[in-house]
Amino acid sequence: MSPSESPVAPAIPPTGLSVELGRDRPIRLDCGAELGPIMVAYQTYGRLNADKSNAILICHALTGDHYVADPHPITGKPGWWSELVGPGRVFDTDRYFLICSNVLGGCMGTTGPMEINPATGQPWGLSFPVITIGDMVQVQARLVDFLGIDQLFCVVGGSMGGMQVLEWVHTYPERVFSAIPIASAARHSAQNIAFHEVGRQAIMADPDWRDGNYLLEGTRPHRGLAVARMAAHITYLSEPALHQKFGRNLQNRDKVAYGFDADFQVESYLRHQGSTFVDRFDANSYLYITRAMDYFDLAAENGGTLANAFRGARTRFCIVSFTSDWLFPTPESRAVVHALNAVAANVSFVEIKSDKGHDAFLLDEPEFHATLTGFLEGAAAHRGLPRPGAAVVGRSQP
Amino acid sequence: MSPSESPVAPAIPPTGLSVELGRDRPIRLDCGAELGPIMVAYQTYGRLNADKSNAILICHALTGDHYVADPHPITGKPGWWSELVGPGRVFDTDRYFLICSNVLGGCMGTTGPMEINPATGQPWGLSFPVITIGDMVQVQARLVDFLGIDQLFCVVGGSMGGMQVLEWVHTYPERVFSAIPIASAARHSAQNIAFHEVGRQAIMADPDWRDGNYLLEGTRPHRGLAVARMAAHITYLSEPALHQKFGRNLQNRDKVAYGFDADFQVESYLRHQGSTFVDRFDANSYLYITRAMDYFDLAAENGGTLANAFRGARTRFCIVSFTSDWLFPTPESRAVVHALNAVAANVSFVEIKSDKGHDAFLLDEPEFHATLTGFLEGAAAHRGLPRPGAAVVGRSQP
Repeated sequence: MSPSESPVAPAIPPTGLSVELGRDRPIRLDCGAELGPIMVAYQTYGRLNADKSNAILICHALTGDHYVADPHPITGKPGWWSELVGPGRVFDTDRYFLICSNVLGGCMGTTGPMEINPATGQPWGLSFPVITIGDMVQVQARLVDFLGIDQLFCVVGGSMGGMQVLEWVHTYPERVFSAIPIASAARHSAQNIAFHEVGRQAIMADPDWRDGNYLLEGTRPHRGLAVARMAAHITYLSEPALHQKFGRNLQNRDKVAYGFDADFQVESYLRHQGSTFVDRFDANSYLYITRAMDYFDLAAENGGTLANAFRGARTRFCIVSFTSDWLFPTPESRAVVHALNAVAANVSFVEIKSDKGHDAFLLDEPEFHATLTGFLEGAAAHRGLPRPGAAVVGRSQP
Repeated sequence: MSPSESPVAPAIPPTGLSVELGRDRPIRLDCGAELGPIMVAYQTYGRLNADKSNAILICHALTGDHYVADPHPITGKPGWWSELVGPGRVFDTDRYFLICSNVLGGCMGTTGPMEINPATGQPWGLSFPVITIGDMVQVQARLVDFLGIDQLFCVVGGSMGGMQVLEWVHTYPERVFSAIPIASAARHSAQNIAFHEVGRQAIMADPDWRDGNYLLEGTRPHRGLAVARMAAHITYLSEPALHQKFGRNLQNRDKVAYGFDADFQVESYLRHQGSTFVDRFDANSYLYITRAMDYFDLAAENGGTLANAFRGARTRFCIVSFTSDWLFPTPESRAVVHALNAVAANVSFVEIKSDKGHDAFLLDEPEFHATLTGFLEGAAAHRGLPRPGAAVVGRSQP
């Protein structure tokens, strides 16, 4: 922690922490640009133990944030992994110290295109440099430095969060004792790039996007962003889930209305997903973060061989996929498992039977939660973390 | 054919035929409205035989038209089933008389929201009544009446075309000797309704849509329609097809460009699909036709039991699906097969192994084409159609 890197009042009330990083040593991005100082919004749960060996970094997904287990400051809804965080829960706050930060490029307090560029005094907009998963992880590593933690007990995340987990092991193998990439992949597929591109085009087609300058011009590309969210949301579910949840049920009617209002419940649901999303997410952030995911390709960064990305790593892996996830289907996870096997890494792989699609990692899936608990128990035993209730010299969270 | 129903000059050059229908007897639509007179644009290939027993009605898909085997008048590209139509081909023009009409609500010459409402002298726009697959088929039946044909030898079509095939047998069982619904379903699934809704929302979010009045106001919702097409186009392909065709290949670059231009080939391809589509398709037509597909549910129309839709039908069926089609996956076809089996219908079912996704029915798939040929041969033998080369009393096409 450099003298200039000190906690400041949170940018987003009520519960977030925030720290300025990179004032003395800017973040060198993959695109070549340098960025700094930047703000990083984060949240912690539980207490860091005396030897700082019980820290778990939780990496959030595309539209997630660091409100893992707190009410979201805008929507008021419970945090996205609330059910997994707490005493005796999967991420046992009596045992682990949990950290989650809003990713670089995000819009919940960490520096991104929505924030003010100190050099100009205006919102970054599209002048914000294009970022990568590697850049996000580099910033997270700076935060972990700031918190005084050398090695994370575990890095865990689903979807884009899982990409960050893989990147962590690739870039900082000695700093990751165990890793849990969930419903993820070592590269973004052509189909997924295609869906992202549809979303970006929807945003950029909205005249209120104003070539990215909407904040300055007092508009908001809400219609385009809502369409982007609607298209993406379909990919987070499964056909069986949609069928079970909505089928062809009509919206408050016995008979179709012969019109273009939301006639089917699934239409109304999607419209709701789109219209509520725009209240909590920034359109340019959506462009930047989807782009970072598109660019992610660990094999390409390692001479075309994914195994090279993990050579020498002693991290213990638990790879999780879900049967009905067609956005990050099991073969993508299996490719990671094969690469880890090729370098004789310590890896377990679980495909969870679920009809909930990609979103399963956010939902109540007992077998999934039991898998996480079991893996963490085993890793904690190897790491020598005492069970809750044993005498621990605790430390307040920073 | 009523005296007022006579061929007129084609609305769309160069090759289409066109007929006015319903002047004396308007089309009674499912929504309750009456429509007439209407124009129907169609095309024929081959010659109708003396006893009018060799007619095949080809039903086109959502964005298709009646230019089955002629160059498209706007794009100049070959017709969508050109490879299947001609002497000695699957649809042997030496043997069969082929008919295809632009659907009601379409934008290639048949009455739809783009055309002028005779009552107002202005484009219909959203004052056009909402239509159904049943309405489309009713209009096709009027066209078949006009052509003087009692029974069609075959009704065939893929995707929405397959829905029309099923509707034909349901509504006019005695008029359909054989039927080939391809890559289709007896109802539109929740996921498919969801994707359609995204497309409609993209169109309606475009300020140039002007609440549907863009023709009158001199604008065109090209951006919204392009986004709708891009989203839909992904669903027409398969993940393996996208991977093989594009993978993560970059667009004319060795290295990612760290920007939002089309960096990956798949992005460039999708953008091209979107931008070319708007030249040949009307945005309101897209709304109406997707809505007709959403409303399609043969079981619901028959007391909730799909088999009831086909009770008593003596039509010979060939049901075709493709392994990699996730828009109209094989279980949808199998549900139709089960319903037909339940009423002891004559049905064969073929699932074609293909990695081309839903679009396989438009592409070079030898096993698919062999299936069509084989089924048509068998049906023709049962119908007593002479083989080409045998003496036939021909008749010019109307």
